[in-house]
Amino acid sequence: MSTSIRLAIDVMGGDFGPRCIIPAVARSLQQISDLQVILVGDAEQVEPLCKKHQLPSGRFRCVSTTQTILAEDSPASVLRGKPDASMRVAIEQVRDGQADACLSAGNTGALMVLSRSILGTLDSIERPAIMAALPVAGKACYLLDLGANVDCSALQLFQFALMGSEAARELSGIERPRVGLLNIGSEVNKGSQRVREASELLRQSDALNYIGHVEGDGLFRGDADVVVCDGFVGNVVLKASEGLAGYMQAELRKALTANLLLRCLSPLLGAALRPMIRRHDPGCYNGASLLGLKGVVVKSHGGADENAFAAAIDRAAQAGRSNLPQRIALRLEGSVPASQ
Amino acid sequence: MSTSIRLAIDVMGGDFGPRCIIPAVARSLQQISDLQVILVGDAEQVEPLCKKHQLPSGRFRCVSTTQTILAEDSPASVLRGKPDASMRVAIEQVRDGQADACLSAGNTGALMVLSRSILGTLDSIERPAIMAALPVAGKACYLLDLGANVDCSALQLFQFALMGSEAARELSGIERPRVGLLNIGSEVNKGSQRVREASELLRQSDALNYIGHVEGDGLFRGDADVVVCDGFVGNVVLKASEGLAGYMQAELRKALTANLLLRCLSPLLGAALRPMIRRHDPGCYNGASLLGLKGVVVKSHGGADENAFAAAIDRAAQAGRSNLPQRIALRLEGSVPASQ
Repeated sequence: MSTSIRLAIDVMGGDFGPRCIIPAVARSLQQISDLQVILVGDAEQVEPLCKKHQLPSGRFRCVSTTQTILAEDSPASVLRGKPDASMRVAIEQVRDGQADACLSAGNTGALMVLSRSILGTLDSIERPAIMAALPVAGKACYLLDLGANVDCSALQLFQFALMGSEAARELSGIERPRVGLLNIGSEVNKGSQRVREASELLRQSDALNYIGHVEGDGLFRGDADVVVCDGFVGNVVLKASEGLAGYMQAELRKALTANLLLRCLSPLLGAALRPMIRRHDPGCYNGASLLGLKGVVVKSHGGADENAFAAAIDRAAQAGRSNLPQRIALRLEGSVPASQ
Repeated sequence: MSTSIRLAIDVMGGDFGPRCIIPAVARSLQQISDLQVILVGDAEQVEPLCKKHQLPSGRFRCVSTTQTILAEDSPASVLRGKPDASMRVAIEQVRDGQADACLSAGNTGALMVLSRSILGTLDSIERPAIMAALPVAGKACYLLDLGANVDCSALQLFQFALMGSEAARELSGIERPRVGLLNIGSEVNKGSQRVREASELLRQSDALNYIGHVEGDGLFRGDADVVVCDGFVGNVVLKASEGLAGYMQAELRKALTANLLLRCLSPLLGAALRPMIRRHDPGCYNGASLLGLKGVVVKSHGGADENAFAAAIDRAAQAGRSNLPQRIALRLEGSVPASQ
């Protein structure tokens, strides 16, 4: 049995496709000595790039496909059509035991429905969720769900908490991750019916280090290691945060280059600000996990550059190495209240 | 009939009470020449402060009260108890025609239930909403609801859009404010059932300049002048944005004072950054409107300092001057689809 970590990568996904992904793979193969990759996509595009970036032979192989899933393809249509899509074939590598994890920068909705259909959902899980890390003070705050489930029952929110807690333990090495429930007040009687019910389930469970409600500003105070919410709220908060961070950085750049004197000082200012910017670079935290499936699937940001895609490879390798689905399944046994 | 603008202020509300509010009032009385204020609160605390800050006689009067609503008071308990609370008496000034608007920095839930009970809700409005401005590139993006309504029907979201549009016109002077619906994707089939239904109502109405769905990051790209969502999402997004902005400013300050050379340059850097920070100071945008009531009620941030409270006085005066409730009532006539 091989002890290497085997990753199936959908090289056709994302805004930049193979010309961004192949150099990221080349770099990751240098940095992660036991990494093996299966590159799934159009061989005519992929093979010349593998030569160009000198991918080490014996550590990668290509699986050629003829179809690509587009951003505008509906989840329903990708289930019926495109049997030879690179995304589908990459997930099938995990199902068939050829890979320990699958990574794609393609259409998130399509990745979720294909993963559920091909890999299946863990027995006691009602719905899988998408989880990503927000960079707060150089640490990760894991937020889920990020859009897979628009409406969630209290039990689903409870399951997200268990899955997120286990993932934070594996990915960040925190022994007892602090789990919070996103809400509009810290008092127990706040929020919608479903959030209050979820809060009750979480309080009654001893399987979790539940710290209670976390408000929007608590996300950026490091109040919790894992924060749980429904997919509508999570998606809006994540995108608003990305939007605001980008907006503030652009405003800062404008202000610090407003006159000649400041522009002369830019090497000094750049050196002072670079560690902070690097510590909060969303690219370093790229790689959202699809949790609750019977296999490891990681979603890269569609607009990821080479650096960011390499970060997602890291995350996928880590999740595959720790066999996260099996750990979540073990954790769920006996921890989940009976379906309501 | 007086043409001055008369403001009833709950001076006991907020984290700092009269010692922050009275100096803010003193400054606003200097700056707004036709402003008259009714200071509602504990006369023993208020009157010495009025002397100390030399409030011009003839432009203010005190209404003494013996009770204060606390942050932990439940909305239900403030309706039954505390008949002489400063917040209640301040709202009653509007009901009794003594004031054109009421301003409080106290408990938001209490302010909403007391306002609904004392002033009443506009005829065609199902539920009032709370609206605040996000500072984006020196302009306001109005977001509502911010927590008055945890769950909202499609019709309520539609009504929020009409109220927000009218408020943006009065407060920002935009002729046809661009109204967006906060959602997790730009496609028409995205989001929860209720959001999709609201989207349909908005698309069919010609009373609004409806631009479609706005995603979280769109809030900070200036895509819309008014963005509508339910109170849970709005509250979380607003607080997350405030939390992130505060966190990034603190990180920036740390980075720019990390060494002696940078500290020597701090006057220069301060001058470069100050206009940007001022343009985005949440304090300058302090003052959330309670829309849908038969009177003008404005909520200041509980932690507002003197500057921020003065900004809320400005906003309350502006809303009172334009007689926003009457304008909203006129706008609603004939624009609201039949209740579903």
